[in-house]
Amino acid sequence: MTAFRKKFPLIVVIMALLAINSDKACAGDPDMLQDLCVADLTSTTKLNGFPCKNVFFAADFGSLVLSRPGATNNTFGSLVTAANVLGIPGLNTLGVSMARIDYAPGGINAPHIHPRATEMIYVLQGQLDVGFITTANVLIAKRIVQGEVFVFPRGLVHFQKNNGAVPAAVIAGFNSQLPGTQSIATTLFGSSPPVPSDVLAQAFQIGTMQVEQIKAKFAPRK
Amino acid sequence: MTAFRKKFPLIVVIMALLAINSDKACAGDPDMLQDLCVADLTSTTKLNGFPCKNVFFAADFGSLVLSRPGATNNTFGSLVTAANVLGIPGLNTLGVSMARIDYAPGGINAPHIHPRATEMIYVLQGQLDVGFITTANVLIAKRIVQGEVFVFPRGLVHFQKNNGAVPAAVIAGFNSQLPGTQSIATTLFGSSPPVPSDVLAQAFQIGTMQVEQIKAKFAPRK
Amino acid sequence: MTAFRKKFPLIVVIMALLAINSDKACAGDPDMLQDLCVADLTSTTKLNGFPCKNVFFAADFGSLVLSRPGATNNTFGSLVTAANVLGIPGLNTLGVSMARIDYAPGGINAPHIHPRATEMIYVLQGQLDVGFITTANVLIAKRIVQGEVFVFPRGLVHFQKNNGAVPAAVIAGFNSQLPGTQSIATTLFGSSPPVPSDVLAQAFQIGTMQVEQIKAKFAPRK
Amino acid sequence: MTAFRKKFPLIVVIMALLAINSDKACAGDPDMLQDLCVADLTSTTKLNGFPCKNVFFAADFGSLVLSRPGATNNTFGSLVTAANVLGIPGLNTLGVSMARIDYAPGGINAPHIHPRATEMIYVLQGQLDVGFITTANVLIAKRIVQGEVFVFPRGLVHFQKNNGAVPAAVIAGFNSQLPGTQSIATTLFGSSPPVPSDVLAQAFQIGTMQVEQIKAKFAPRK
Amino acid sequence: MTAFRKKFPLIVVIMALLAINSDKACAGDPDMLQDLCVADLTSTTKLNGFPCKNVFFAADFGSLVLSRPGATNNTFGSLVTAANVLGIPGLNTLGVSMARIDYAPGGINAPHIHPRATEMIYVLQGQLDVGFITTANVLIAKRIVQGEVFVFPRGLVHFQKNNGAVPAAVIAGFNSQLPGTQSIATTLFGSSPPVPSDVLAQAFQIGTMQVEQIKAKFAPRK
Amino acid sequence: MTAFRKKFPLIVVIMALLAINSDKACAGDPDMLQDLCVADLTSTTKLNGFPCKNVFFAADFGSLVLSRPGATNNTFGSLVTAANVLGIPGLNTLGVSMARIDYAPGGINAPHIHPRATEMIYVLQGQLDVGFITTANVLIAKRIVQGEVFVFPRGLVHFQKNNGAVPAAVIAGFNSQLPGTQSIATTLFGSSPPVPSDVLAQAFQIGTMQVEQIKAKFAPRK
Repeated sequence: MTAFRKKFPLIVVIMALLAINSDKACAGDPDMLQDLCVADLTSTTKLNGFPCKNVFFAADFGSLVLSRPGATNNTFGSLVTAANVLGIPGLNTLGVSMARIDYAPGGINAPHIHPRATEMIYVLQGQLDVGFITTANVLIAKRIVQGEVFVFPRGLVHFQKNNGAVPAAVIAGFNSQLPGTQSIATTLFGSSPPVPSDVLAQAFQIGTMQVEQIKAKFAPRK
Repeated sequence: MTAFRKKFPLIVVIMALLAINSDKACAGDPDMLQDLCVADLTSTTKLNGFPCKNVFFAADFGSLVLSRPGATNNTFGSLVTAANVLGIPGLNTLGVSMARIDYAPGGINAPHIHPRATEMIYVLQGQLDVGFITTANVLIAKRIVQGEVFVFPRGLVHFQKNNGAVPAAVIAGFNSQLPGTQSIATTLFGSSPPVPSDVLAQAFQIGTMQVEQIKAKFAPRK
Repeated sequence: MTAFRKKFPLIVVIMALLAINSDKACAGDPDMLQDLCVADLTSTTKLNGFPCKNVFFAADFGSLVLSRPGATNNTFGSLVTAANVLGIPGLNTLGVSMARIDYAPGGINAPHIHPRATEMIYVLQGQLDVGFITTANVLIAKRIVQGEVFVFPRGLVHFQKNNGAVPAAVIAGFNSQLPGTQSIATTLFGSSPPVPSDVLAQAFQIGTMQVEQIKAKFAPRK
Repeated sequence: MTAFRKKFPLIVVIMALLAINSDKACAGDPDMLQDLCVADLTSTTKLNGFPCKNVFFAADFGSLVLSRPGATNNTFGSLVTAANVLGIPGLNTLGVSMARIDYAPGGINAPHIHPRATEMIYVLQGQLDVGFITTANVLIAKRIVQGEVFVFPRGLVHFQKNNGAVPAAVIAGFNSQLPGTQSIATTLFGSSPPVPSDVLAQAFQIGTMQVEQIKAKFAPRK
Repeated sequence: MTAFRKKFPLIVVIMALLAINSDKACAGDPDMLQDLCVADLTSTTKLNGFPCKNVFFAADFGSLVLSRPGATNNTFGSLVTAANVLGIPGLNTLGVSMARIDYAPGGINAPHIHPRATEMIYVLQGQLDVGFITTANVLIAKRIVQGEVFVFPRGLVHFQKNNGAVPAAVIAGFNSQLPGTQSIATTLFGSSPPVPSDVLAQAFQIGTMQVEQIKAKFAPRK
Repeated sequence: MTAFRKKFPLIVVIMALLAINSDKACAGDPDMLQDLCVADLTSTTKLNGFPCKNVFFAADFGSLVLSRPGATNNTFGSLVTAANVLGIPGLNTLGVSMARIDYAPGGINAPHIHPRATEMIYVLQGQLDVGFITTANVLIAKRIVQGEVFVFPRGLVHFQKNNGAVPAAVIAGFNSQLPGTQSIATTLFGSSPPVPSDVLAQAFQIGTMQVEQIKAKFAPRK
């Protein structure tokens, strides 16, 4: 027990900065009180969303960040590229954002949730096996192909896997300017500070050594 | 004056049916009170949104309706294909929908508004000159190209035109299950019953004859 | 095409100021998080709505701006006088505002939309022919008389015309502290920078020359 | 203690009907999911708001109920006439309503709250001494005159008194289709079943006999 | 009439400070736009809710303020201890708060309303006679015992009384970070500046002298 | 690939029933449109939330379900007992619910999320090591003791563990009438139909055999 207290000694968390660097997102935001409020991302005033800039460009409402496939040569064989308020300041207060997800053959967008948005995807190319799980632990799953759309409700665990022989890609729409993403395995086994191993062992009904092995693979990069 | 009363004699409007057939959409909806509420589109109980079906398929959450380009050989040289709750019952209560818009060279998605949603588009192919106008009558406009995203705030007039030499297409995401669309010219000059011509003449500062000429082009099809 | 890019060369838009001068409004705002938040309209911090003043007067919650008829000797024969958060700082976060509209005989409040509010009017004097149009392009219209109330749903095009022989006036209530108004003809033909004429010609199915003639009448005042 | 249980023996409350007869109102409602949902006030299906009618008239969106002064020859010298969803079915899902309040000289609209709406009033005639009280027990009060507007925040106790020599009247706008009204004295001393007298004596720091005397004046009419 | 104006001569209200000292609360708040926004309670920027701190502790999300019974040796024989955003800055934007209420035998939590929250209570110990009153003036009342839960809808007058022989205590949950409380008798008879006595006499149908007697008991402490 | 399609052959999901049996909860619901709407849990009309009963008892607003400790002699050494709209019909439309969680010494409430609610807990007895993880993968953790409160933001993974020598218990408040719960390990390894093992192996960076071993422990009970 003392150990627990030591591991979390009323730690000072410098999280606003970390949150700003979070690069994934999803929705259901408060209503606008004016036409526009282009985010002043550099303001020292932090609030629910962002303060508005006084001067802005038409370019603040658009972005080319989704125009090229993301690099999928990583552990999961997939990459999420976000187009949310952190990169497109004009989205502030407007309640929407997008993302592009690329998948190598065999690549996976591992099970994750968006705490603030429902997600709807359109398959740009390839095919995907997708699914979400309800709070009654029912899996709703389907193979979707190029041109097909599919929806993942806010706050429910979901995933996509490219079981095809060629790369796949989707465009995702969210009903939040910053949906947020919790990738389940990374969140549980790669957080900083770490979730205590006994908690994870008990939760997944595995041994502590197994927990440590998984943690080793999700260690936060320095 | 008597004429006015005659034209709208406390008319009985059978609008629920018409509204159901409206095939375009945009958003910012109330929160969910359960995981899912797959729309029972055939229910005789009408309410804000739709009642839920008791039995549903995984297919209720997806659609292939956007997988093929829409036919653009019409007056405007463009076609909007909706993927909203009217075609994808699983979207009910989830607060999102999508659409695909195809544009022939020179085609236009004429100035319109979505009363219930902000719209964010991703250019599938081609290039577009797009813009929206604020309530201060300021036009925010930009040329966008393949892979670019751009946003149109809820309730503001906006348009897209394909000034390129090849067809263009976009995927649009909305933060409503049924955004609704009012295409300005069609709404004003092609409604049923018609908006009185003197109102339109006065509004656009043109002659009544000019109004009638425009109306002739927007007459609702029987 | 080059022309298009030239007309909108990533223009710097000083819009916060313009928006502040917007003098019409209506809505559906986020909930309050405290009793009151009287708007500090001069704060350099811009956000969704307004920051709160530290010191305020009871007078911040009221106004005499609607107490006298507006001057209707203008092109449209009508005048909208707003009583929103820009003039009544106490309205900030409270989700309501009002307006008074005066109409000369023959005067019109031309077709317009409020992106952020439903509007309900009470006829102070005279009579009006009013209507709104649904997204299914159905006109709902009615003659209303002194003492009558009528409602225009958020985001739908609507208008009022005084076809009577004497002046008319209404008090309007909105469910937003700043509803915003887009007067259709002014927005499309009088914006700054202007909407390209070919877009308008195509949208209304008229010639470019006609577009220019209408634009001349809606040129923004310097 | 047994007495308490006896007074409220798990009483069956037939309240839906009573609520329907409530004739006062105020707001901040959920967003619309379609253009319109004209209330079917006679439906046997009860839900949050009302189900929609299949067929409706333009008249469903208006009413003449506020066109004539209400009778003020009663105990309080005032009368509230509501124009909410219970009388104007077209208001359903639209988030607004109105009311007219008439005051005889010396008449009072006694302290009350609207649980679901902020209220903004416009003085049609006469003058009123008005006020609301914050949760910090600060009274914000002002004399307002013909043509003046004033706002009362959602959920805060407020009142109006006509200290003038002539009748007064206001038009009130609310941001709810059915704001609800709790007139403090009537609610506490005239409810059915009654609030226990010892509770009221303790709350107001008066004797039980005084409580009974006040209760006698607020007895619910049979 | 002149008297009235004198009593409220466009008084300067320093209310932000008073509101901050308000120590009770409950609600229904806008959605979050990021994971967290720990309130910077000392910021000079005031807004709807609070700006966020840059650096925070895990301790910002918890509190021991409810761990000990409140002192009930006061006029009402009860004490409300709040655990809202004013004491737990981590609650900012999260839409919840709690409170503990202790009651001596015979103690009462006098009739009051929370303008921004529904309240749900859990009885820690003892038993209570509780009730709320609808806008149709129907009392819903019940005796509840240790371990029982009960709900009081947002904006409706409610009360609890300990008719038992031993102390009672509840834990209350609210759906607002700062629900606000208006204790009816204190608000009406103890506000600063005071509600005019003729208003209260007329409202409660009692004599002005009786009003003054009640006011004497609720005089704001200096 | 064919295998995938076979495992989910457009399965008919009878989920409304399953969802109804979900016995855990959390929040942030749409606003009320009337005082009360006591859930008719047996209605054949399914919608967002529940239709209202015509006749109800005061008992519909309370429950004794949390009055006794839950049995903790199970795998996790803990039990969640819900007090949400499924058991307390009066909660419908009111936006709150509660739960009681009991923990044996060493017991854990395994990492889970509530898609529709923030949760705030009050420690009835014992002590707990609690934590939540942000979307930036930062763990916010703390030991909390009897009488302490702590908050878990909507949609973020969180957990509690009783590292003490005696049983612990908390009362939880949520800002939703039905928060929903996804217990991460059960959802991923115990869903029906099952999440494909290759997806889980890839997500957690473990072997398929390990996946099968974990799945065996979370097999849904028949």
